[in-house]
Amino acid sequence: MDALATLIDWLRIPSISSDPAHNGDTRRAAEFAAQLLANLDHVELIEAPGRHPLVYADFLHAAGRPTLLFYGHYDVQPPEPLNEWHSPPFEPAIRRDPHLPGDNLYARGSADDKGLALTLIWAVRQMLEERGSLPVNVRFLIEGEEESGGEHIEQFVATHPERLAADAAVIADTEMFAPELPTLCVGLRGIIYGEIHVEGARTDLHSGVYGGAAPNPLQAMAEIITALKDHNGHITIPGFYERVSPPSPLERAAWARLPFDEAAYLAREVGSPELTGEPEIALFERLWARPTFEVHGIRGGFIGEGAKTVIPARAVAKVSFRLVADQQPAEAVEQIRQAIAAATPRGVRAKFELLHAAAPSLVDASNRYVQAAAQAMTDTFSAETVFTRSGGSIPVVGLFDQHLHIPSIMLGFGLPDDNLHAPNEKLYLPNFFRGIDATRRLMDRIGSFSI
Amino acid sequence: MDALATLIDWLRIPSISSDPAHNGDTRRAAEFAAQLLANLDHVELIEAPGRHPLVYADFLHAAGRPTLLFYGHYDVQPPEPLNEWHSPPFEPAIRRDPHLPGDNLYARGSADDKGLALTLIWAVRQMLEERGSLPVNVRFLIEGEEESGGEHIEQFVATHPERLAADAAVIADTEMFAPELPTLCVGLRGIIYGEIHVEGARTDLHSGVYGGAAPNPLQAMAEIITALKDHNGHITIPGFYERVSPPSPLERAAWARLPFDEAAYLAREVGSPELTGEPEIALFERLWARPTFEVHGIRGGFIGEGAKTVIPARAVAKVSFRLVADQQPAEAVEQIRQAIAAATPRGVRAKFELLHAAAPSLVDASNRYVQAAAQAMTDTFSAETVFTRSGGSIPVVGLFDQHLHIPSIMLGFGLPDDNLHAPNEKLYLPNFFRGIDATRRLMDRIGSFSI
Repeated sequence: MDALATLIDWLRIPSISSDPAHNGDTRRAAEFAAQLLANLDHVELIEAPGRHPLVYADFLHAAGRPTLLFYGHYDVQPPEPLNEWHSPPFEPAIRRDPHLPGDNLYARGSADDKGLALTLIWAVRQMLEERGSLPVNVRFLIEGEEESGGEHIEQFVATHPERLAADAAVIADTEMFAPELPTLCVGLRGIIYGEIHVEGARTDLHSGVYGGAAPNPLQAMAEIITALKDHNGHITIPGFYERVSPPSPLERAAWARLPFDEAAYLAREVGSPELTGEPEIALFERLWARPTFEVHGIRGGFIGEGAKTVIPARAVAKVSFRLVADQQPAEAVEQIRQAIAAATPRGVRAKFELLHAAAPSLVDASNRYVQAAAQAMTDTFSAETVFTRSGGSIPVVGLFDQHLHIPSIMLGFGLPDDNLHAPNEKLYLPNFFRGIDATRRLMDRIGSFSI
Repeated sequence: MDALATLIDWLRIPSISSDPAHNGDTRRAAEFAAQLLANLDHVELIEAPGRHPLVYADFLHAAGRPTLLFYGHYDVQPPEPLNEWHSPPFEPAIRRDPHLPGDNLYARGSADDKGLALTLIWAVRQMLEERGSLPVNVRFLIEGEEESGGEHIEQFVATHPERLAADAAVIADTEMFAPELPTLCVGLRGIIYGEIHVEGARTDLHSGVYGGAAPNPLQAMAEIITALKDHNGHITIPGFYERVSPPSPLERAAWARLPFDEAAYLAREVGSPELTGEPEIALFERLWARPTFEVHGIRGGFIGEGAKTVIPARAVAKVSFRLVADQQPAEAVEQIRQAIAAATPRGVRAKFELLHAAAPSLVDASNRYVQAAAQAMTDTFSAETVFTRSGGSIPVVGLFDQHLHIPSIMLGFGLPDDNLHAPNEKLYLPNFFRGIDATRRLMDRIGSFSI
């Protein structure tokens, strides 16, 4: 079997974990992953009621050697808006961009995360086929709820740490800083995802008859949103920044040395008139080491064709807050609730409904597993590995830290313009194959450690 | 034929003029109206490319007597949200409320406006059948774009005033102040309906990767919205109140004498925790004589099930401004555009797209046609007619004023809790029949005028 053909088959399955209409597809993607791990021992779909299965497998035959816990996820983000895709999200297509020599594979899940998860799986399969053994002990835990809250893995890790005993976790769900720059991510933002609900009148009302007397929940929502973040990108929730730990001077200096063209980033990646965020804070620190508040969508009233003069009875905003070390999700949720209560105008009721939360994480870069990974990456790419952080959230890193007490090695094989969570998600295929190579090198290096 | 059965048949046609998918239905509703007017002369569907037809008919055989121009509309608002209707919007259902002795007819369009338009049509049909003649000359103009901008009637009235020559217009599209209180509306708010468009990045972006650097058009929209109206309901657009003409002390005093229980209004009609709007201004003045700004819906990002962490590339807010005498729509649009430009935060582009506009209007209550109408209403209801204004917008009143130079008599047969533009729109049936009676009395009274 061929690694790329296998990936394409996996990507054809629309495993959108947040959409119950795709529950069957999500299960098929889990079964596909289990099939890929069939050469290992104890291959199992770990089930829980109403949850997408965890895919588990292990191969524990390297006595006296470290155990690595490989993590990835088989679920994907919803593909909307569909009309902005140049090829259908679940019909993988290979196209080349002018600015890089290799091909791209376009599909929802190509970079986030099936393509990267498969680098880990394929490296292990290949070694096993070639050698009949592995230099380290391995466990796989591939989840199906990374894009929809991850409650199943959270419960499983918390209640079955003995089944996941390992020395380090290896996570392929981050990106390289630049196309030929091997990158290890040592910090992740946490997240609080939820909904702000605002209720006004009992029913939708005519804005001519009631305008001037009835509360408008969309107006109230705008007031609440602007009360949580000012026009300079500062979150104005009391206490929200209190636990924010600034990066060390060494880390700031390293970030300042990263090869980076802010004008090109603005023009090619973002494409807005200018960048935004806290003006007094440098870009990487804003992206990696500062909390954020973002509105993802606002429901309520009339958004169809034409003109409907309705004062909606209710409005819901889908929002998230990114957290950074050492913020604590439970405390932050309480701060958010109080700030929303304080900002709620008269005439409406408002509440915050938490959908999921994950703690931020920071890994010590001097750890020998992290150092081994850096060397493996440097060898594969023939370039010095850089240490970065990521603005995204990978909740399992916090879980593994809290319950398994192990560091996480975040191998980055994605690229910054992979359009994660957006139309035209892609994977740069040379990195897919280098990812397999680097994972093999990593296993060989760590296989030389005694424990 | 029976008036109620006829109304029910008309209401079964989902003539949603703003939705092109219902263009066929909207035409059927026009043809139905033409059929109702078949006993008159010159019955015609006046067509314009891409427009819903105007239904015209006349009966001009009362030499030396005034001519009345009867106006109504056969189109309706979209029925969404469908799940809040107790019976389907286009399957008329008769139910009784405990607090009134008569039946209600529930259907989209029952009160706005097929039911009220039919009172005028039926009065004329009945008189013609009984007497073979009418005491006045009449013209009918029934439009199909009242809920979607009304461009066709606007063009027709402006370019063919000679075809509509009349002494007064009679419009049945307003409401009674209270169930047994005959009401003539002498003032209407105008409207500016449009969309605020905000554009940020080129494509939707991942809030983890880009949060802190990329602009969020939904956040920018919230900033723009709150910059247009403060939390006390004051519109903060420079110059917006400059031409607002306050009601006379006499009018204010009459409004203060209206039978009205603000607590019951809040509890039964609005149902919010409290009323809102400018705190220093009395309720009727806020509703009838002050401009408003309302957000009707916000499109952009993700509002489906589950959690999608997207920074949307763009957002659109559907908004309206109600205008009062002597505000001028064109000038107000320019003020709105400038205020949006001033409120647009860095990182995004914003613009205001006008969908339609109508001037506010005020009619002189001492006009003999208005006085005749008041007497006809008083006779039908056996109660003194009160003069009110309406917070809604009936653009034809301004059109008739500007191009035909005639006053409009606004006969109100709807009730305040008819749920116009909302789920469970209804018509109180006793008023439907009294509307027919009052229209007959009005024609007889005006038929005694010489011109």
